[in-house]
Amino acid sequence: MTKSALQIARATYKPKVPRTLEGIVKIEEGKSTQSVSHQEAIQKEFPNTYGMPLITFVAGTEKKQYSAVNVGVILSGGQAPGGHNVIAGIFDGIKAMNPDSRLYGFILGPGGLIDHQYIELTADIIDEYRNTGGFDIIGSGRTKLETKEQFEKGLVILKKLNIKALVIIGGDDSNTNACVLAEYYAQKGAGVQVIGCPKTIDGDLKNEMIETSFGFDTACKVYSEVIGNIQRDCNSSRKYWHFIKLMGRSASHIALECALQVQPNICLISEEIEAKNQSLDDIIQYIADIVAKRAENGNNFGTVLIPEGLIEFIPAMKKLIHELNEYLAHYEEEFKRIKRSHQLAHITDKLSFENSKIFARLPENVARQLTMDRDPHGNVQVSLIETEKLLAEMVGKRLTEMEKEGKFKGKFASLVHFFGYEGRCAAPSNYDADYCYSLGYTAAGLIGFGKTGYMSSVRNTTAPASEWIAGGVPITMMMNMERRHGDMKPVIQKALVKLDGGPFKTFAAHRDAWAIDTDYVYPGPIQYFGPTEVCNQPTITLQIEQKELHQND
Amino acid sequence: MTKSALQIARATYKPKVPRTLEGIVKIEEGKSTQSVSHQEAIQKEFPNTYGMPLITFVAGTEKKQYSAVNVGVILSGGQAPGGHNVIAGIFDGIKAMNPDSRLYGFILGPGGLIDHQYIELTADIIDEYRNTGGFDIIGSGRTKLETKEQFEKGLVILKKLNIKALVIIGGDDSNTNACVLAEYYAQKGAGVQVIGCPKTIDGDLKNEMIETSFGFDTACKVYSEVIGNIQRDCNSSRKYWHFIKLMGRSASHIALECALQVQPNICLISEEIEAKNQSLDDIIQYIADIVAKRAENGNNFGTVLIPEGLIEFIPAMKKLIHELNEYLAHYEEEFKRIKRSHQLAHITDKLSFENSKIFARLPENVARQLTMDRDPHGNVQVSLIETEKLLAEMVGKRLTEMEKEGKFKGKFASLVHFFGYEGRCAAPSNYDADYCYSLGYTAAGLIGFGKTGYMSSVRNTTAPASEWIAGGVPITMMMNMERRHGDMKPVIQKALVKLDGGPFKTFAAHRDAWAIDTDYVYPGPIQYFGPTEVCNQPTITLQIEQKELHQND
Repeated sequence: MTKSALQIARATYKPKVPRTLEGIVKIEEGKSTQSVSHQEAIQKEFPNTYGMPLITFVAGTEKKQYSAVNVGVILSGGQAPGGHNVIAGIFDGIKAMNPDSRLYGFILGPGGLIDHQYIELTADIIDEYRNTGGFDIIGSGRTKLETKEQFEKGLVILKKLNIKALVIIGGDDSNTNACVLAEYYAQKGAGVQVIGCPKTIDGDLKNEMIETSFGFDTACKVYSEVIGNIQRDCNSSRKYWHFIKLMGRSASHIALECALQVQPNICLISEEIEAKNQSLDDIIQYIADIVAKRAENGNNFGTVLIPEGLIEFIPAMKKLIHELNEYLAHYEEEFKRIKRSHQLAHITDKLSFENSKIFARLPENVARQLTMDRDPHGNVQVSLIETEKLLAEMVGKRLTEMEKEGKFKGKFASLVHFFGYEGRCAAPSNYDADYCYSLGYTAAGLIGFGKTGYMSSVRNTTAPASEWIAGGVPITMMMNMERRHGDMKPVIQKALVKLDGGPFKTFAAHRDAWAIDTDYVYPGPIQYFGPTEVCNQPTITLQIEQKELHQND
Repeated sequence: MTKSALQIARATYKPKVPRTLEGIVKIEEGKSTQSVSHQEAIQKEFPNTYGMPLITFVAGTEKKQYSAVNVGVILSGGQAPGGHNVIAGIFDGIKAMNPDSRLYGFILGPGGLIDHQYIELTADIIDEYRNTGGFDIIGSGRTKLETKEQFEKGLVILKKLNIKALVIIGGDDSNTNACVLAEYYAQKGAGVQVIGCPKTIDGDLKNEMIETSFGFDTACKVYSEVIGNIQRDCNSSRKYWHFIKLMGRSASHIALECALQVQPNICLISEEIEAKNQSLDDIIQYIADIVAKRAENGNNFGTVLIPEGLIEFIPAMKKLIHELNEYLAHYEEEFKRIKRSHQLAHITDKLSFENSKIFARLPENVARQLTMDRDPHGNVQVSLIETEKLLAEMVGKRLTEMEKEGKFKGKFASLVHFFGYEGRCAAPSNYDADYCYSLGYTAAGLIGFGKTGYMSSVRNTTAPASEWIAGGVPITMMMNMERRHGDMKPVIQKALVKLDGGPFKTFAAHRDAWAIDTDYVYPGPIQYFGPTEVCNQPTITLQIEQKELHQND
């Protein structure tokens, strides 16, 4: 591995941890907990792991003797900055409890557990990866740990390696599955604890006990860096509208956080569009009106932030996509035999009147994307739809019409961008480096105290790290029942952008001014060595949320 | 202007300057100079500014009294990190000579001079922009200063503001025009000096006296940051080939520098492809073979860097584009009347046999791009061609064929990126902050010594800044005669990637290993405050070139 100068310098960084984790630790247990809703149904599914108390680590006085323990770790799903530090935290944590403890990493995600692909993570290996981005230490994968057969296959290798605890680092689905696995192993007395860690750049795994998912901080800062650079370009050449799509299919937290950081002219928030039942035309008109208004001031340039999942949140588009999915599920072969140049006309005929109208107005490439690329479940692959181009093209058309109507006098030229892979594996910011290491160290503590079915939790993270509060949250506490593939299932409730929450309200209070004035902010790249106000600020979203929380205290 | 924490912290940075600029300065003049070639023809065009000596600033003993001088400054062409520091350097330089000196900025590029749009740049304004990215202090533009009428219009405002010297910050074309303007004003005794500054992220304005153009350092570092992040992602999920296009239409310096920084699996260098007379098929096969080879080792992932201008460097594509340009120049109206679905077949019929074969094999969207978007000169707009998609699609097709032939056993999924606007307005790295400020300060010195037709030059920049050598280079010294719009014109010779130069040879010596092994480097974001080896390294290209130069000394 050839290392960059920054990587070498950064390797020596010592992540900050909560003061309580530094000395002798004991646990305080709170009251027993309940799930978000559907308490009875969820309790029925999790007889052994439901209702457990919240756990907080506090300073102890009596040194506990810990036996050596073998621990397994899995990285599940999409990459997020800081995963390596979670693993380093687990490693240091179990070694601090007993130097004979060992850590095994399963290769390329949950599939590694099922297929018995693993390596032992020794001090040499861990040291190579401290404070680095990526999940490449053991790789990640998207196999879902869901079936008893998988759980049993996993148990074979866990027993063989004498692994008594498994840490699953993942998003809401992976943590739901971690809890199902915890319950399964508890129920059969397998002697394997399962602990989850909250990971996802999307920021949609959070609740009152999990302030944020790791990686959100770093990823948003990378995106804000490049968006800021684009805005400075935009403000220098003064001739382009930049349509910038950002990762975040299920929730718009990333777009919202970036908007708070860079103050763009426009940011769309999927949750608001759905709540207001807006059509694609409404959105196009909203953007076109701002373009026209800025043009009146001679500003034929601007920026538009677009959450990746937008299309699915527009109620009318959702209906169209649903009808297309239904049609193609039944007639895909027939459809494929039709000559390419006739396909779109053919499908327009088959759609309901409402949907055919919408479909016929889409740019050809987007219409084709909606008919072509299906995932294994028969759904359109939203991430492949170039929403940023769709909006840019349709806004352009609308402005041409407005020009004829005398409502637009200006120039409109657009450029498009999509940022996602650029931020998922960045070297973690100080915040994520500290938070992740603390999450891992806390997971080790939960293992030491014999817990299972818990998620590692580190709170109060807008305060200095020494004052952070470490502990565990029963995963069942975050669950509700949702329909998945036709059946009701207990799952961790996804955190969408709350329209009555502080971050959105802050954005909404400023967006009209940002639309017309040019008040771009240029955050610049993540700094690891500079003044604290540059290097150690959490996301604006988290700062606002924590302020709200403490006001309500 | 709302400022980010980094912007505020960075505002106090004091750019490092050559020691000789810090005290009393005098000039040393070298021998008279000659143009790169066509000496007689160029001398004839530049009777007043041809053959002037090289100038070096050295420590003096006698304090020179400078009169106050009014100076104008213009930002010409695409943005590059550090432009604001050039202006700050000019400002501080002319104020140091005489506090009554004044600086005027012409708005939105050379057009501002012609249309008399300007502002006075006072200390308050300058201080707001020190060490920041972008050209937004006065904006930039692409109007070419070429005609006598423009020169005369400019002279009106210069006289009105009593401006005795004009600094034009631009690329090779803008500096060529700066010299034409210098000659014109000299010839008519207008009393206006003209000084150029070497700007362009593309890195193609360099020669023995101009080590690098400013902005190249910062832009390459931003691109390398995000490419590094993508590589870490790629190496973690192990399932995608990322095709990454990078700005740089005329030369591949950016792609080459990024390759040296991140060690990708593949990097295409346009100059090599042209020299080897490679076809599009050759390139596709080259990539496909590496994909297949990596797949043999279970590595179904990788990265490919692609210079923006690639298409125009493939000799066969160049011929095709030329024939398409010719055809559309004559039959555009007729072509536009043809039904969209018949356009491509129609044009294929009209092309020569060789070109029609190539055209017919292109993916539909690229074929359309080649027929649709013409610039005002009737040329295809290369930057709009999605070369990254073209290559990804064609490699995919080739691999499907190879699979049938038993030559490829693996998976191939691709993602595409284009980076350009993300780096042009980043806050300058320490290198660019220092280099740009020094260039500006040097330009002020050249003004103080009454020079015109010179480019500001700062050399020896891989040494500590105190040892940098500041001076001036006659612009005519960099010129040769080239055909432009049918006529032979004196222009600054563009610096393409030299296939016998150190940077390319270093890359070529490693690329086969990088292709098969995964030896990605993750440079991370530009750091402004950390250890010197992290914050103060020039580009690898420059380091290699300087080492070569000193070996030849």
